[in-house]
Amino acid sequence: MKFCSACGHAVVQKVPAGDNRLRFVCESCETIHYQNPKIICGCLPTWQDKVLLCKRGIEPRYGFWTLPAGFMENGETTQEGAARETWEEAAAKVEVGDLYCIFNIPQISQVYVMYRGEIVDGNFGVGEESIEAGLFAEEAIPWDELAFPSIKRTLRYYFSDRKLGKFPVRVEDLIHRTPD
Amino acid sequence: MKFCSACGHAVVQKVPAGDNRLRFVCESCETIHYQNPKIICGCLPTWQDKVLLCKRGIEPRYGFWTLPAGFMENGETTQEGAARETWEEAAAKVEVGDLYCIFNIPQISQVYVMYRGEIVDGNFGVGEESIEAGLFAEEAIPWDELAFPSIKRTLRYYFSDRKLGKFPVRVEDLIHRTPD
Repeated sequence: MKFCSACGHAVVQKVPAGDNRLRFVCESCETIHYQNPKIICGCLPTWQDKVLLCKRGIEPRYGFWTLPAGFMENGETTQEGAARETWEEAAAKVEVGDLYCIFNIPQISQVYVMYRGEIVDGNFGVGEESIEAGLFAEEAIPWDELAFPSIKRTLRYYFSDRKLGKFPVRVEDLIHRTPD
Repeated sequence: MKFCSACGHAVVQKVPAGDNRLRFVCESCETIHYQNPKIICGCLPTWQDKVLLCKRGIEPRYGFWTLPAGFMENGETTQEGAARETWEEAAAKVEVGDLYCIFNIPQISQVYVMYRGEIVDGNFGVGEESIEAGLFAEEAIPWDELAFPSIKRTLRYYFSDRKLGKFPVRVEDLIHRTPD
């Protein structure tokens, strides 16, 4: 950030009065430009004993497999975001079910919020941001070609929990901070 | 948003190629300025059979009681945010425990992430953003002077769940959308 989005003047970095963190501040109009973590909403869509994955058609991780997930939009709920991403990436309508995983990824200031979901009619396709999609049984999951650690963790939990028939909410930090 | 924070030129609102939503876009440097929901991290801090509340010393809802909660900061986990807010607002050190409530508030593009937490040594004080703090037994909770619906819901769930000795994760939409 170099310029104030409110008035167009150059911003500076400083700790505002009453604060204890560096912020981008406009010394002309006095706007403080806070920057905060973003939510990634996602879904683990199932149909019978299979899980719907899609192959990413965009960077980062082009060509790797993922669960439908993406940046939450203003004005929606986390469940609406999970359903929207499933539609956009895999052209599948899901009935979003219970909350399943929360992943903190502080080094990139993201929080994943993953729901389980059931595909409504078994139909799916290839969304605009994908180059392939498919239903995978556990033994067919491409473990070495998954896009992100959050996706691998969600799938690992799912197949493990499914054997026990219980899906407790999982909260986990995925921390790869640079060593001091 | 009126100006591009990257180059200082005026922004316009338009739907970028491949997108389906209005965004602020800089037609000079082509930066798309996405705006996304914010996370409010909070804690329900307990000591023995009591809950720690603080009276807000800032707007909005100056003078109303709240659980410690506030905007999550970049670089922290949701639990770290919950602990930080408890320190900043009520000068209490908490051992953050299990995730407890997720509230979607789409009309203001916020998601609350509330944890239960235990005050480490029973000590608390009045943080910079508060004008009072106190430990409240259930019968002493000032139900009509609580700052936000999210706080009231969290406390209602807590006292109800405590009677049963189980604290399932609660996911709920707090929707007050304007009627069409």
